[in-house]
Parts: sequence; C-alpha cells; structure tokens
Amino acid sequence: MCDACVMESVKQKMLSRRSFFKAAAVGTAGIAAASAGIAPPALAQGHTGVTDLTHELYEEFPTFFGQQQFFREEKFNYAKDKFNMFELRVNEHTGTHVDAPLHFSADGLSVAELPVEKLVVPLAVIDIRQKASADADAQVTPDDIKAWVAANGDIPENACIAMLSGWSAHLGTDKFRNVDANGKLHFPGFHVEAAKYLLEETKAAGIAVDTLSLDHGPSPDFATHYAWLPEGRWGLEAAANLDKVPAKGATLVLGAPKHRGGTGGPARVFALV
Amino acid sequence: MCDACVMESVKQKMLSRRSFFKAAAVGTAGIAAASAGIAPPALAQGHTGVTDLTHELYEEFPTFFGQQQFFREEKFNYAKDKFNMFELRVNEHTGTHVDAPLHFSADGLSVAELPVEKLVVPLAVIDIRQKASADADAQVTPDDIKAWVAANGDIPENACIAMLSGWSAHLGTDKFRNVDANGKLHFPGFHVEAAKYLLEETKAAGIAVDTLSLDHGPSPDFATHYAWLPEGRWGLEAAANLDKVPAKGATLVLGAPKHRGGTGGPARVFALV
Repeated sequence: MCDACVMESVKQKMLSRRSFFKAAAVGTAGIAAASAGIAPPALAQGHTGVTDLTHELYEEFPTFFGQQQFFREEKFNYAKDKFNMFELRVNEHTGTHVDAPLHFSADGLSVAELPVEKLVVPLAVIDIRQKASADADAQVTPDDIKAWVAANGDIPENACIAMLSGWSAHLGTDKFRNVDANGKLHFPGFHVEAAKYLLEETKAAGIAVDTLSLDHGPSPDFATHYAWLPEGRWGLEAAANLDKVPAKGATLVLGAPKHRGGTGGPARVFALV
Repeated sequence: MCDACVMESVKQKMLSRRSFFKAAAVGTAGIAAASAGIAPPALAQGHTGVTDLTHELYEEFPTFFGQQQFFREEKFNYAKDKFNMFELRVNEHTGTHVDAPLHFSADGLSVAELPVEKLVVPLAVIDIRQKASADADAQVTPDDIKAWVAANGDIPENACIAMLSGWSAHLGTDKFRNVDANGKLHFPGFHVEAAKYLLEETKAAGIAVDTLSLDHGPSPDFATHYAWLPEGRWGLEAAANLDKVPAKGATLVLGAPKHRGGTGGPARVFALV
C-alpha cells in the first residue's frame, strides 16, 4: 500500500469531490422523502417497499451478558491517509443477530451452512404488545400462534415467526435489559411450548424476537434455545421495526454473516413488503 | 451467566436432541436437493430462486493488503459450557464486503447510513470473462456498458452494475491476488471512465466486482474508488456466483452491516431471481 502515492494523486481531486458529494447528499434526502410515501422508488419484482429490521450497532448496544461486545479501532484515517478503515471486534451474539443451530448444539449447522432457501422466507408477526406492556416476562404461547392462524391462515412453509413485544422501543433505556435487584433480566420471549408447537405443527425455518433472547429474560435454562436451535432452525434476536410490517405477507431476508464455523453473528435483515 | 445451572438443566436433554438433530440434518439435505432443481421450495412474492453472492469467510481469505484480516476466538464451548460462542476480529474490508462512501471520502455516508432503498436493487451483470482470461488487468469500460445496454436495454434506476470477470474461480489459489515480482497485483476491475460514465448516464446505486478491488489490481491511484464512492454510491468487492445469475432481471439484496460510522464491512449478498 502506497499511502504517499494516493495522497499525491488525489489531493487535487478533493475540492471538486466535496461539491459532488453535497449534490449526492441532496439526492439521498430525496430518496428518504420518497420512502416516506411521496413517490415510492421502483423496486424490482413486485415489492413496493423495504423495511429495515436491523438496529444500528454501536459500542454501547445492550447485550445479554451486560458487557460491551462491539469495539472498533481506526486503522486508516482520511485526513492522514486519504481513506478511512476500521478493524472491528465483535461477539457473534451482538446487536440484531442470528443464532445458528451450532450456538446451542454440539454439531449443528454453522451460520455459514444455513441453506439460502431458509434465509429468504415468509414472515409471520405475532403481536403480544398488549400482554408484554402489562408483564415484562410475557411469552409467546401456543395459543398466541393459534390466534395468528385463526386470523391469517396457516403458517407458511419455511416461515419466520416473529414476536412483536414492543420491546425495541426500550432500546437505549435500562428497560431493554430490565435487570432486577437480583441481576435477573425481564423481557419477553418465546415459551418453550410455543417452540415445540412450531416444530410439531409447522415447517418454520426460524423465530425472531425484538428482545435480547429467544427465551424470556428470567429463563433459568434457555429452554427455548435448546428446544429450537438443535432442530436445525435459526433464531433472530434484537430485531427492529417489527411494528412497521404486516402480520402476514412480507418476505424476510436474513442477511446472516457467513463466517466458517460461526455460531451466529450480526445480520442485516430486511422485510420486503 | 450460570453455566452450572445450564449444564444441570440440559444434561438430560442432550441424548434425545441428538436424534432430533439427525432428523433435521436429513431435512436440510432434502432442501439442498430441492434447490438443485428437483422440487424448488416456494419463495414469496414472485421469486423462484435465491443465489448466494457471498463467499464463506475464513481466516485465510485473501485480502488486498495481503495480511490476515479475519480472526476468531472461542469464548464458550459446547463440551464445557453447553453452548458455543466466538468473538470475531475483522477488518471492515474483508471477504465479500461493502465499500461505503465514507471509505474514500472525508464525510460520505457510513455503511449504516446507506438508504435501504439503495440496498435492494436491480442487478445488471457485465460479462468480461473473455478479455479477463486473456489479460488479468482487464477493465470494464464504457464500451462494455454500452454493449450491455444494446443487448438488454437501459440500466435500471438504482441498479447495481456487476463485473463478471470469472475471477472468483481463482479464490483459494495465488491467482486471486496474482501478485507479481514487484509486489503489484493483477486482477480485473472497473475503469475510472466506466465509473464516470455510470455517474453521468445512469442513476446506478452501486458497482460490484468478483475481485479484491473496484479498481483493477495494478491501479496506482484508486481512481475508480475516488470517482465512485464520494458520489454517495456503494461498492461490493469479492462477490461470488455472478456466473450463476442472469445478465438482467435479478434483484440484488445487499445485506450490508450496520455499525455506526462504518466505512464498509462483510456483507451477506443475495440475488433473487
């Protein structure tokens, strides 16, 4: 890498680039306005919109264990090197992230081995906001799934069943982890019987939560993790914007990371509506 | 975290889980067979297939700079802890990855700021395999773009224009970086005039390459990076499987990471066909 060469050759370009960039920034604002409903941009193949189900990841993003799990170190700096570059250090289970079967099994599929057909799937959103607002330890139960089916029809094959507890509204506050005086966490999750029901009655590919764990906060034994993941299914934790997609009809795209032997990792997740 | 509790509570479950997991593994094989064409799984909203444009990331994945840029450290181990978990350390520009405008500008959009409408886009694949096989330093030129338009019609708005040089076939061999006796790299990329042509004549969102850099290997000045990225556009490097998607008609989903202030990062990238 010849930093000096780069600096020499581009020094003159920078002034004009800045003005170009300002124009581009205006263009971006225009797109944001368009996505707000003024003039939706054309999307390919029948989709009219994309909803980002991913939270921004930052150093203080809350974690299940309570310690910082995302770090970054500047390796190159534009002022000095004429380009920017960071090295990242991150625990696989940080931010909006995937749990692969290998996370809770001896020899389950790694995150790199999940078949792509299981990563672009119908999305079913189960809204338990009402009971979650009354009880932080609320869980998705088989009855909640049955109520969804009664209203929306059968769970589609390869679906992702997502819990909308409303908890993502608490991100950035202590209520997201909601730790009590004994160190126990309190947030909603999937009841183990709901996971077993999905395994027995459907061909679901994954489950998603808008909290820090597939199990609800006070779980003593990760029962839902152990019931679900070793069966070759995936989990998605800390999903965003589940309140902005329909209960039925969206397609979830799980942009899982693809590092060899991984047990999961930060993912980019979209709902195509 | 109470490892002992977990161990106690799940010890009895493991035996039965193993048999479940074997069943799941068979199911997975069935899906793989289905994706090979035997009985395509149903995909939502008009798509008949998903192609993974992402290479698996591993420690020895070749890098532009030539040094290892991906590391992992085991934090929990199933045999001991009853679950698996790694911490990852990775340079943002490693594996199949995104270049955000901020990578080559003082104040461009970070990878977390890219509008989602620019991440689910029409894919145009420009096949330069013939000239790349004759010349490792081959570049996509304005004439290549014009030839694509003549055959396929106008470049769609918000498109990703991808270079198919055939170079991903060299991954795992020295030819992927193709370094000469003077330390110079030799692989195909986008000519700066092609980038300028796309800026002037189209409303493209991004460009993609199946090599380690948007610029071809021997570039002395990253001219294409500097022409393209500061204009608020993104780049995708080391894309996989571009030979398995049509020249026109697929939708690219760029699962860019979303860490605050990031200059890019490993991405999960799909083509919906």
